[in-house]
Amino acid sequence: MPEPRYDVIAIGNAIVDVMAHCTDELIDELGLTRGGMMLVDEEQANQLYEAMGPAREISGGSAANTLAGLSAMGAQCAFIGQVADDQLGAVFAHDIHAVGIDFDTPKRAGEPATARCLIFVTPDGQRTMNTFLGASQFLPATALNEEAIGGARILYLEGYLWDPEEPRAAMRRAIETARAAGRKVAFTLSDTFVIARHGEDFRQLMAEGLIDILFANKAELAAITGKEDFEEGLAEIAPLVPVLVVTRSEEGAVAIAHGERAEAAAEPIAKVVDTTGAGDLFAAGFLFGHVRGRDLATCLRMGAIAAAEIISHIGARSEVDLAALIESKLG
Amino acid sequence: MPEPRYDVIAIGNAIVDVMAHCTDELIDELGLTRGGMMLVDEEQANQLYEAMGPAREISGGSAANTLAGLSAMGAQCAFIGQVADDQLGAVFAHDIHAVGIDFDTPKRAGEPATARCLIFVTPDGQRTMNTFLGASQFLPATALNEEAIGGARILYLEGYLWDPEEPRAAMRRAIETARAAGRKVAFTLSDTFVIARHGEDFRQLMAEGLIDILFANKAELAAITGKEDFEEGLAEIAPLVPVLVVTRSEEGAVAIAHGERAEAAAEPIAKVVDTTGAGDLFAAGFLFGHVRGRDLATCLRMGAIAAAEIISHIGARSEVDLAALIESKLG
Repeated sequence: MPEPRYDVIAIGNAIVDVMAHCTDELIDELGLTRGGMMLVDEEQANQLYEAMGPAREISGGSAANTLAGLSAMGAQCAFIGQVADDQLGAVFAHDIHAVGIDFDTPKRAGEPATARCLIFVTPDGQRTMNTFLGASQFLPATALNEEAIGGARILYLEGYLWDPEEPRAAMRRAIETARAAGRKVAFTLSDTFVIARHGEDFRQLMAEGLIDILFANKAELAAITGKEDFEEGLAEIAPLVPVLVVTRSEEGAVAIAHGERAEAAAEPIAKVVDTTGAGDLFAAGFLFGHVRGRDLATCLRMGAIAAAEIISHIGARSEVDLAALIESKLG
Repeated sequence: MPEPRYDVIAIGNAIVDVMAHCTDELIDELGLTRGGMMLVDEEQANQLYEAMGPAREISGGSAANTLAGLSAMGAQCAFIGQVADDQLGAVFAHDIHAVGIDFDTPKRAGEPATARCLIFVTPDGQRTMNTFLGASQFLPATALNEEAIGGARILYLEGYLWDPEEPRAAMRRAIETARAAGRKVAFTLSDTFVIARHGEDFRQLMAEGLIDILFANKAELAAITGKEDFEEGLAEIAPLVPVLVVTRSEEGAVAIAHGERAEAAAEPIAKVVDTTGAGDLFAAGFLFGHVRGRDLATCLRMGAIAAAEIISHIGARSEVDLAALIESKLG
């Protein structure tokens, strides 16, 4: 097996976040579910945008955020995702290239536009997301760079993208490609709505031994197991994957790898400004530790440090030197 | 004269800022003039964007920033400026509407795209701006809402927009409209390059008594008078305009109105994060005091408070309650 060219290659939604602070009342008025992620069509997106305060645009997308974090830590990364041939697509491509990530998925001509996620951030720092998937949901299997996938230590897949049909087929093919090249597959469950629709698929992937590293949060663990009890949930999934990582917001995180269990407390932070990207950056920190051969507890700690950094400012992309931050915190 | 519908109506560039932190070395490598504003064509803009780190998009434009500040303070405002029919144009329009500003200039079909300003922010918080004017430079006089101009206490004009021919003609016509309705005209000199090219026009406008309130910074005062000595510059311009306001960054600001002179110190701030919009928000604070009939020293103080707020975070649009902030600081 040749030396990998990339540490991590990811397939995910190519999204620009449109972020604004808002009052708690606005969340209620708009009938949104605080802290949730909702898929919206273009008309709903326009209506919500109309109701939104002055915003800023920052590239996002769950797996893309994870990669941006990994790249800032010093990992070699590549991204696969679908943008349209429009200004927001150019913004997304610029921002991902600018952090040193290879991204060469051809732009898609015509409608729909590049995906955007309207994110309302309440005074407590909680984010409520409304995603118009646009071009992102039309990633075809033919757009996969199979050589790049075969040349990455880890193929990282975003559960969100399992919902639309074309990218799901593309991700199934990418898993085969990675496996054929002897590479690992990491998967994040993304959201309970995805599990409600595709939980059987995910269980099947695990049963077939196709997921090496599974990321979930507490709610997603409960959704995929049907077990409200956290420990029972862990006990059910841990035997199905070599590495299981479950985050619990301010309660910290747990990982079980090949029977070994480790935990990490949440990293203390002065003020939660915006939780957007917390899970994505946790995954980045964990994966960076993993590809660098750190022990399980340290991988968790690295995830916790990266997550704490991202929630201390607005946006899911970091502007600090994450590598230096993590090293200083690990001591 | 009917009661004004607006406190301030402004004509300015309709720009989306593309902002990124950068090293001092990058400014040198790119051959940029630190702290300056440079006009670039689309090709240069693309080259600079290529060299730029991961960015965020936040609506900008000098006069539009001033209006956003005024609106946040509680003033009734309207904006006139040219966007293209594209995604960045929609972003600009959304953000200005979202702060309660009337903006109904018809979008311009086809090329060029909506204006953007690539802003490199160095570690000291200084911004270096590179503006692709795009659609903004094609604002035609026919796009003016003359009823709105006649119905505003103050017509506020951005010197930057004096450079391209069509908007210059539009602004001349707007001045006539405002004057015919018995309204005041405020003008910001914007940048020394504009003065180098159009200083004679500006002196002529003052000679004709068409500028009631003139905003300049120290460098612009020196450029329009040719006098390096600050006091000599003040003495030359003050008699030409009813109200002269000159900012001097950390040295505070001076105003001379009908022979009365007032000064204000710069508002202390913990850390200069990004100076983008400092002058624009100073003008907002001053004008808000002016339209609310505050005394000259208080108007300056209000400008200083608003400017200090904007340089304490990235972007030239504020997300705090500026009205409350100013009241609390004025005590």
